[in-house]
Amino acid sequence: MSGGLTIAVDAMSGDLGAATAVPGSLDVLASTPELKLALVGRREVLGPLLGKGAHVDRCTIVEASEIVGMDEHPKDALRKKKDSSMRVAINLVKSGHASACVSAGNTGALLATARFVLRMIPGIDRPAIVSPVPAAHGHTLMLDLGANPDCNSDNLLQFAVMGSALATDLYGTARPRIGLLNIGEEEIKGTDQIRAAHARLGRAPLNYVGFVEGDDIFSGEVDVVVTDGFTGNVALKAMEGTARFIGTVMREELTRSTLRKAGAMAASPALSALKKRLDPRAYNGATMVGLAGVVIKSHGGADRVSFANAVRVAVVEARKGLPEQIGELLGRVTAAERAGAASTA
Amino acid sequence: MSGGLTIAVDAMSGDLGAATAVPGSLDVLASTPELKLALVGRREVLGPLLGKGAHVDRCTIVEASEIVGMDEHPKDALRKKKDSSMRVAINLVKSGHASACVSAGNTGALLATARFVLRMIPGIDRPAIVSPVPAAHGHTLMLDLGANPDCNSDNLLQFAVMGSALATDLYGTARPRIGLLNIGEEEIKGTDQIRAAHARLGRAPLNYVGFVEGDDIFSGEVDVVVTDGFTGNVALKAMEGTARFIGTVMREELTRSTLRKAGAMAASPALSALKKRLDPRAYNGATMVGLAGVVIKSHGGADRVSFANAVRVAVVEARKGLPEQIGELLGRVTAAERAGAASTA
Repeated sequence: MSGGLTIAVDAMSGDLGAATAVPGSLDVLASTPELKLALVGRREVLGPLLGKGAHVDRCTIVEASEIVGMDEHPKDALRKKKDSSMRVAINLVKSGHASACVSAGNTGALLATARFVLRMIPGIDRPAIVSPVPAAHGHTLMLDLGANPDCNSDNLLQFAVMGSALATDLYGTARPRIGLLNIGEEEIKGTDQIRAAHARLGRAPLNYVGFVEGDDIFSGEVDVVVTDGFTGNVALKAMEGTARFIGTVMREELTRSTLRKAGAMAASPALSALKKRLDPRAYNGATMVGLAGVVIKSHGGADRVSFANAVRVAVVEARKGLPEQIGELLGRVTAAERAGAASTA
Repeated sequence: MSGGLTIAVDAMSGDLGAATAVPGSLDVLASTPELKLALVGRREVLGPLLGKGAHVDRCTIVEASEIVGMDEHPKDALRKKKDSSMRVAINLVKSGHASACVSAGNTGALLATARFVLRMIPGIDRPAIVSPVPAAHGHTLMLDLGANPDCNSDNLLQFAVMGSALATDLYGTARPRIGLLNIGEEEIKGTDQIRAAHARLGRAPLNYVGFVEGDDIFSGEVDVVVTDGFTGNVALKAMEGTARFIGTVMREELTRSTLRKAGAMAASPALSALKKRLDPRAYNGATMVGLAGVVIKSHGGADRVSFANAVRVAVVEARKGLPEQIGELLGRVTAAERAGAASTA
């Protein structure tokens, strides 16, 4: 277990623990020949799950005796659980034994521990949580989704840099279009911090398209939507709530009577295709950007298919070297700001 | 045109102007025998649209020579368009000739003009925009939807009072359950203003249930969701965007082939019922609460059915006397805060 492409998997956290993390991770081995896995957790739990499946020769179990609880306070996790599966997985990234780590654990604890162990990319003040959202053109990346409720214009500018680098790495978008979330397209609206970020983004060497509104997340007009962690988290959950609510109403109407059920049967190929296109499992794997290492957060309730997708995100970011990409782009943006300040001084 | 239940209709604003405002308003006359309408605008436009329809004896045209543009700056509308259909409709509420007014015009101009003409309910610092959202139990009222991007704990407490009074008036809910939007249910999360509002709401004589998250807007666990106007506006538009995106994907999948179209046909009773249950036209009519008068904002692109629904909201609030209800409830909440402060002093 060293060199090449090794992903450290916190195999004990999440609502379903090792029972989904192990098979989900193993599923990625088949399609990724150079991938090696460091499965972190209690050997007596992980060993039997590994069994004698295909590709297990590319798996190593790394012992960790503790587990961070899903409701445990981040500070407690950081101070008291130094041998947790989460902490040990992050340590493997720090030591260079792994190129990235994946965890379905407690978001606050993962963020605090990763920040403490890995530190930030120089020039990035705070980490952000970013995830793809299905949109008309494929995917929109939105950040921050909850790491920082209050953001100043420095944070928002840095989020734009990180989102831009990630869109290029994940989707190969050459010049990702970046929008700043606001409540109107006129320059008079929004808060002071947002107006300040808008002015700075307009001068930065990024493909900044200006203010966007909540419905533009889906419009295909932008590749990256930048906002503070409070607004981003509420918007994400409101979107998930809307989709779930529509799904519930649809099921009620399609099963209201025998006749309706027969009709639903006739439409089932279309309804299955719809379900597949909007399957939230396909979008599992949020990136904690800004850290000096790749850390992927899987949904706590992820099943095997979902968890595998989170591991796939880790593979892409590890291959591309996301933190270095962010560092380079930030350097260009910072240099341009300095040059602009010097020319107007 | 005086006394009884008279609604002043700004019949010239909105994307479609008089062509939808007039027939939409007239549609409400049939089901509301005591209703009278004051249709405000240019007589030569409105007269022909009134024609000799049923119930036109309960309509009066009130002349107004100007129209506020949909993109006009609120300050310009306020200072320069003193004979606009919007301004004259609001004036009718101020003078007591109408019990409420409805406009599909420019939100900023309507808010600024209504605030200038009608003034605030004593004790309410700022108006808020509130609208129902379909939810598991029927409707959730959410506010603020964009009037105030930055809110302090006074504003949030006042929004809770206004939402509570409105839920009782619109849906007859005896003790509306109020939730404060946050990014987690733990008391440690959120901003200082939100934590302060949370503490004050917990002591107020309101049915406050605590923090809720974005997906609780639909859960049926609360009747009123309180948030600042930035978050509320983004969440509302993200929800609308999600619903529209799902609708687009659904249409694509249901019409992808002849076979798929035949299947969709078989399922069409269920799909029509679904469409009807989620029809945004049924939720048209946002209330500008906090003003010393009832002002209803129709969506700018409202069609006839939508506009009629906005007029119906005005009818309910005018009958109930929403501003007085808010004033009374605010008095009780303020008295309880004073008593609490005195007992701990």
